[in-house]
Amino acid sequence: MARIAVVAGDGIGTEVTAQARKVIEAVLPGTEFDDYDLGARFYNRTGEVLPQAIQDELARHDAILLGAIGDPSVPPGVLERGLLLKLRFDFDQYVNLRPSKLWPGTTSPLAGIKPGEIDMVVVREGVEGLYVGAGGVLHKDTPAEIATEESLNTRHGVERVIRDAFARAQRRDRRHVTMVHKTNVLTKAGGLWARTFAAVAAEFPEVTTEYQHIDAASMFMVSNPQRYDVVVTDNLFGDILTDIAAAVTGGIGMAASGSVNPERKYPSTFEPVHGSAPDIAGQGIADPAAAILSASLLLEHLGHHDEAGRVSEAVAAEVASRTPGASLRTAEVGDRVAQAL
Amino acid sequence: MARIAVVAGDGIGTEVTAQARKVIEAVLPGTEFDDYDLGARFYNRTGEVLPQAIQDELARHDAILLGAIGDPSVPPGVLERGLLLKLRFDFDQYVNLRPSKLWPGTTSPLAGIKPGEIDMVVVREGVEGLYVGAGGVLHKDTPAEIATEESLNTRHGVERVIRDAFARAQRRDRRHVTMVHKTNVLTKAGGLWARTFAAVAAEFPEVTTEYQHIDAASMFMVSNPQRYDVVVTDNLFGDILTDIAAAVTGGIGMAASGSVNPERKYPSTFEPVHGSAPDIAGQGIADPAAAILSASLLLEHLGHHDEAGRVSEAVAAEVASRTPGASLRTAEVGDRVAQAL
Ligand SMILES: CC(C)[C@H](C(=O)O)[C@@H](O)C(=O)O
Ligand SMILES: CC(C)[C@H](C(=O)O)[C@@H](O)C(=O)O
Repeated sequence: MARIAVVAGDGIGTEVTAQARKVIEAVLPGTEFDDYDLGARFYNRTGEVLPQAIQDELARHDAILLGAIGDPSVPPGVLERGLLLKLRFDFDQYVNLRPSKLWPGTTSPLAGIKPGEIDMVVVREGVEGLYVGAGGVLHKDTPAEIATEESLNTRHGVERVIRDAFARAQRRDRRHVTMVHKTNVLTKAGGLWARTFAAVAAEFPEVTTEYQHIDAASMFMVSNPQRYDVVVTDNLFGDILTDIAAAVTGGIGMAASGSVNPERKYPSTFEPVHGSAPDIAGQGIADPAAAILSASLLLEHLGHHDEAGRVSEAVAAEVASRTPGASLRTAEVGDRVAQAL
Repeated sequence: MARIAVVAGDGIGTEVTAQARKVIEAVLPGTEFDDYDLGARFYNRTGEVLPQAIQDELARHDAILLGAIGDPSVPPGVLERGLLLKLRFDFDQYVNLRPSKLWPGTTSPLAGIKPGEIDMVVVREGVEGLYVGAGGVLHKDTPAEIATEESLNTRHGVERVIRDAFARAQRRDRRHVTMVHKTNVLTKAGGLWARTFAAVAAEFPEVTTEYQHIDAASMFMVSNPQRYDVVVTDNLFGDILTDIAAAVTGGIGMAASGSVNPERKYPSTFEPVHGSAPDIAGQGIADPAAAILSASLLLEHLGHHDEAGRVSEAVAAEVASRTPGASLRTAEVGDRVAQAL
């Protein structure tokens, strides 16, 4: 039986995660869930973000189901770096997986695009690049101050995430991978990415490929998002591109994500892209669709392909059945999805 | 009389630049133009991108009117770094100015947005950050390869571009500046940007301010671009954001830019954001609107405010008068704009 650590977190995180859990229970009865109270409340109470003992416990689970963390009471960055990024790095979650689909029942802000026309997955590198935290500050708070940020990239790290992207593309209908970087300016990291991409592409002759600079890709993501199938890119570019992809598929309401260690040496984290939304927290009106779709990614990762597919289809059906403009109750959405399963 | 160096460049660059020049001649008769043959043709003939002697001549001009450079015959990056970026760095063009407007007669890919509703200017830092070219490669082409890119940021460089953004906002109706960075992850550079932003903001009490992470800003640029007035950000984030801004205002057809040294110690470069478009070059069908709007930025920079305003109004009127779907002749557009002046 799968053992899942639940970090529901702050704000609407607790509300939507309850629905995701309900849905996993419906398709995988007997799954063990262990709750971990982490996030703003825990930090404000203890002054700690992620005690080592708790991290050791998390490490003994098959996966982590995360809601959302963050609250105005905590200085920005503390929980993100101390919890989300720490888990990504310490658990070697090097594949940051972000599918974007325009689902029936949702509306793109782009004119003339119909549900079904956008269907991509961004495979974002998760543990290298500018996210490593290298760099420094000198002469702080004086006119002579300088600040540096260093992007660190290894052949090891770049190759494994590119190979993961190709393997995913191979399993999809269109079998196309777009690599996004800024090779014309970032020639060192860009060169490594470009050469590695070419080498891995040679192993997948059935997959067609394309390269785009991040600025061009950001533009095409708006003018022609239909063109993308699998996109592979570095940590920071992926952060940006996936938010544009979420925007053109109707916002972060349906945006699921997984921070994945494909070898399952460590647990992977699955969470909706949206935040804790303190403004609507506690009212039971948050849309749990993205959280439930994240649960579907979790099931897929643990090898329950059939269950994963049924969950995402049930979410799609529930969303498609909504009356436009009607208000939504978090628990009712979870109930409807669970009952459909 | 103003002395302008013309680097028309490759592909449609020569065609659209001829129109921009025509329009400057119409509003500032007597302007001296010196043509410089740089770009792919020059590089393929000489093996050089920008000889020092030519750069010294360029330096003796009031401004540079640039068309577009780049051709499939030249390896990617060579001309961009050897010419465009070299001019930005050597001529200390630290304000990279990119207005985005949804003009009457143009269509946003976003549903329900009407001309006039988007009107922003992105003030992108032009000579620091990840564009400096710092970093290196070790163990190239082996499994042990690492590649680094270093973002270098100085209080000097950050402060002057932020001050420029505030000064621009002060002269606009909405008087609002949004600073965009990724302070929650890039804490060193982000901290410098955030502290400098707060310090400069205190000098401009009439200007309201806001901060957004680059991922959120990229999303809002699609879901709510109307909210932006002046945006100030670093070199790479500005590269990305301005392409999204161009996309939501109907593509790069109307996107003008200036790489500006505000003190006029060195010449500034003005160019359309679009490239050399080899596929349609030589046919006389490229839209010169962005090139002519870049000429308007040039006039503004040289202190010809009235002429600058008349040029951009004439372009707006010409674009608004177009029959949707009708084909366009580059020279006729230039003639119509010049005649209107
Ligand atoms: C919260 C933040 C550190 C994080 C990131 O930048 O990766 C978030 O934006 C995301 O995309 O998961
Ligand atoms: C051509 C390239 C080096 C350049 C940049 O990245 O700045 C371009 O994208 C731009 O925005 O002017």
